[in-house]
Amino acid sequence: MTPEPSPKQRIEAGRITEVSLIEMVFPEQTNHYGTLFGGQALALMDKAAFIGASRYARRTVVTASSERVDFHVPVRQGQLVELETRIVATGRTSMTVEVDLYAEDLLTGDRQLGTRGRFVLVALDAHGKPTSVPPLQPPATPELEDAAPAP
Amino acid sequence: MTPEPSPKQRIEAGRITEVSLIEMVFPEQTNHYGTLFGGQALALMDKAAFIGASRYARRTVVTASSERVDFHVPVRQGQLVELETRIVATGRTSMTVEVDLYAEDLLTGDRQLGTRGRFVLVALDAHGKPTSVPPLQPPATPELEDAAPAP
Amino acid sequence: MTPEPSPKQRIEAGRITEVSLIEMVFPEQTNHYGTLFGGQALALMDKAAFIGASRYARRTVVTASSERVDFHVPVRQGQLVELETRIVATGRTSMTVEVDLYAEDLLTGDRQLGTRGRFVLVALDAHGKPTSVPPLQPPATPELEDAAPAP
Amino acid sequence: MTPEPSPKQRIEAGRITEVSLIEMVFPEQTNHYGTLFGGQALALMDKAAFIGASRYARRTVVTASSERVDFHVPVRQGQLVELETRIVATGRTSMTVEVDLYAEDLLTGDRQLGTRGRFVLVALDAHGKPTSVPPLQPPATPELEDAAPAP
Amino acid sequence: MTPEPSPKQRIEAGRITEVSLIEMVFPEQTNHYGTLFGGQALALMDKAAFIGASRYARRTVVTASSERVDFHVPVRQGQLVELETRIVATGRTSMTVEVDLYAEDLLTGDRQLGTRGRFVLVALDAHGKPTSVPPLQPPATPELEDAAPAP
Amino acid sequence: MTPEPSPKQRIEAGRITEVSLIEMVFPEQTNHYGTLFGGQALALMDKAAFIGASRYARRTVVTASSERVDFHVPVRQGQLVELETRIVATGRTSMTVEVDLYAEDLLTGDRQLGTRGRFVLVALDAHGKPTSVPPLQPPATPELEDAAPAP
Repeated sequence: MTPEPSPKQRIEAGRITEVSLIEMVFPEQTNHYGTLFGGQALALMDKAAFIGASRYARRTVVTASSERVDFHVPVRQGQLVELETRIVATGRTSMTVEVDLYAEDLLTGDRQLGTRGRFVLVALDAHGKPTSVPPLQPPATPELEDAAPAP
Repeated sequence: MTPEPSPKQRIEAGRITEVSLIEMVFPEQTNHYGTLFGGQALALMDKAAFIGASRYARRTVVTASSERVDFHVPVRQGQLVELETRIVATGRTSMTVEVDLYAEDLLTGDRQLGTRGRFVLVALDAHGKPTSVPPLQPPATPELEDAAPAP
Repeated sequence: MTPEPSPKQRIEAGRITEVSLIEMVFPEQTNHYGTLFGGQALALMDKAAFIGASRYARRTVVTASSERVDFHVPVRQGQLVELETRIVATGRTSMTVEVDLYAEDLLTGDRQLGTRGRFVLVALDAHGKPTSVPPLQPPATPELEDAAPAP
Repeated sequence: MTPEPSPKQRIEAGRITEVSLIEMVFPEQTNHYGTLFGGQALALMDKAAFIGASRYARRTVVTASSERVDFHVPVRQGQLVELETRIVATGRTSMTVEVDLYAEDLLTGDRQLGTRGRFVLVALDAHGKPTSVPPLQPPATPELEDAAPAP
Repeated sequence: MTPEPSPKQRIEAGRITEVSLIEMVFPEQTNHYGTLFGGQALALMDKAAFIGASRYARRTVVTASSERVDFHVPVRQGQLVELETRIVATGRTSMTVEVDLYAEDLLTGDRQLGTRGRFVLVALDAHGKPTSVPPLQPPATPELEDAAPAP
Repeated sequence: MTPEPSPKQRIEAGRITEVSLIEMVFPEQTNHYGTLFGGQALALMDKAAFIGASRYARRTVVTASSERVDFHVPVRQGQLVELETRIVATGRTSMTVEVDLYAEDLLTGDRQLGTRGRFVLVALDAHGKPTSVPPLQPPATPELEDAAPAP
């Protein structure tokens, strides 16, 4: 019963940089077509970014901005939503978190990228003032170069 | 008891182009600082954009994208959130809706622009296919020139 | 980005006397016929009265009583509920708020008065004791005579 | 494991005429003083009336009106709300349900009548048309004479 | 308007030993078949056990364990759930609460035992330490012998 | 943007046998001590078991029973709940899912096993009849021997 590293985290240099969440889609989150409201998707993505950034920095964090988000594939009621976050850049007190939202059909296992977004979150100290976050490892991998800091 | 034009709508050429919503902030929408989660603000803004675009087009609408949103002023629990939407541009089947989110202190009446965002919504017909929306009036007024189409 | 007077408020002698709210009807608020429960309508009306009275008095307010409410027209799932409040009378520490609840079909724009009710709210000071509210302007205008008790 | 008559029902001539419900008060139902919103109390009372009338008539029922309700004693967060309903009058297709709302402190057991209200509900058939309900037994007891039809 | 002993409680030696709750089943509590999720049933049963144990001991109580629960009969959306609790055993600081969950069809009145479970709750003092609870009366009555552990 | 195997799943012989969920604890899920209600923990665990079994069998599944669950460590408001599920046994139409519930402090990263439980879920076909599930791989590993079928 010893807790091992959670299988769903990716850890770089002792920091958790990736987190994954699963949610079910309920009727009150859907429109007249039975598909997830865009705003509900944004709320889930921000929640995932919040957890991802909190786990990375081990600070209280607040959202400073959300980047442009395009909704490619509607998520239907009864599907699962899986949210995968990655810290793609850090500033002195901020983190840019990329969030992929997948729609998964429970019966077929079919899984599609519904949308992807980026959120910038700022770490706050006990007085609500911005406080420093650990820098992300040097961007030596192609994957991280793609993840340029938000403007 | 005859319903007159609602006082909170602005009507241009027979179309409702502005809508306003009020919401209260409840504990489950707030973080450890007692301020509204960014994702909850986005969800409220999208809901307002949904109502604004539905009323303008009188079609079922879905969110196609949300523009970059910056959170300037945190909204605290116990405050009101007032959301004001404006149709600022139309395409053949899409509408760009600007949404201002104000935080209002109930006791002092102090009211601050917490954030502003733009959402693009697409009108769908009964088969879920994009369908045309009425064009916005020619941008003859300064106010409408300011309301340029989203990039 | 300077906040102007909100378009949906009516202000008399510096006091906000009318407020309007919009809500969507979700499945968990409806009965087996897919129409809004009477109690959900009452809860929405009281919430509107609470906001209306708070904005008028800029005090914390609590509901002291609700008048008889008749439900004329059922509100169906997928419709909007629009709530319009008016301060129709004031006592030393109380306000009578009239609330009209409209059901609006999003696609047709058809809008019907579903019900109308009156709520009496009392202003409380920081110790929870009733405290005075500003008196409503003398009923010199036809509009206020129109604001006679509902039949 | 044979279901016996539920201990909390009162049955007259084969009809259930009294029902009791218990609810807990959660933060999102309370105002800034930590007391139950009037509208939440009304929603709980209507829900109790709905169950009481459904069980009496074994029909789908909808609320036609609520009588004046006075809020005597605030219900605080962390208290229980107990709702007791009684069918006090019947028309051809309608039932008048009296609902008492008690606030109970879990630790002391102290229990106070917070408010009392009357709701009129109408039975509907499968087509949504009013349908007859069984008449209440002749008002031979003092208790039932007190329970005159709502004005 | 004097509060009498609530009709739905059974009192032994001045202690409330039985409590009954009624709940409605809403869409977000149900799976794709429109039947109540097992976990929602467990949550309702624990809530009933919490109220039952609180009322018996007049202490703050927390759940220490839940016994094996078998789900015999699914509860469908639109049905009522009635929960009946009984204190069946006490330790020095703990209470064993048996909870029967009935599904009731509103229109037919048909009522079936959906599941039965036992929860052990511990009373805590103001410092969060286990504190004594009143012992259950000696099991001299047939009814308590009947209250043997569920098979 | 090609979806790869989700990092948080463990796949055996083409079947997903482990799943992980993260939840935040909100005020309405907590008792007077600000700790998660036992019933809310059970509901989250059942939801995780539901997703785990659905993903393993790619069938609609319902909970047939929950095993005894002991609550070791309370989960406090503001903590994360992480749920990790494993398919530990299969029958012809049933799956036994073990669920570990961890409480994680967001700021310290401290992570404790709050409780562990087992749920048996049955796969249903389109007519609601039990249908076969793929057998778990032969229990060749020590880990799986430990995971004996529930009694």
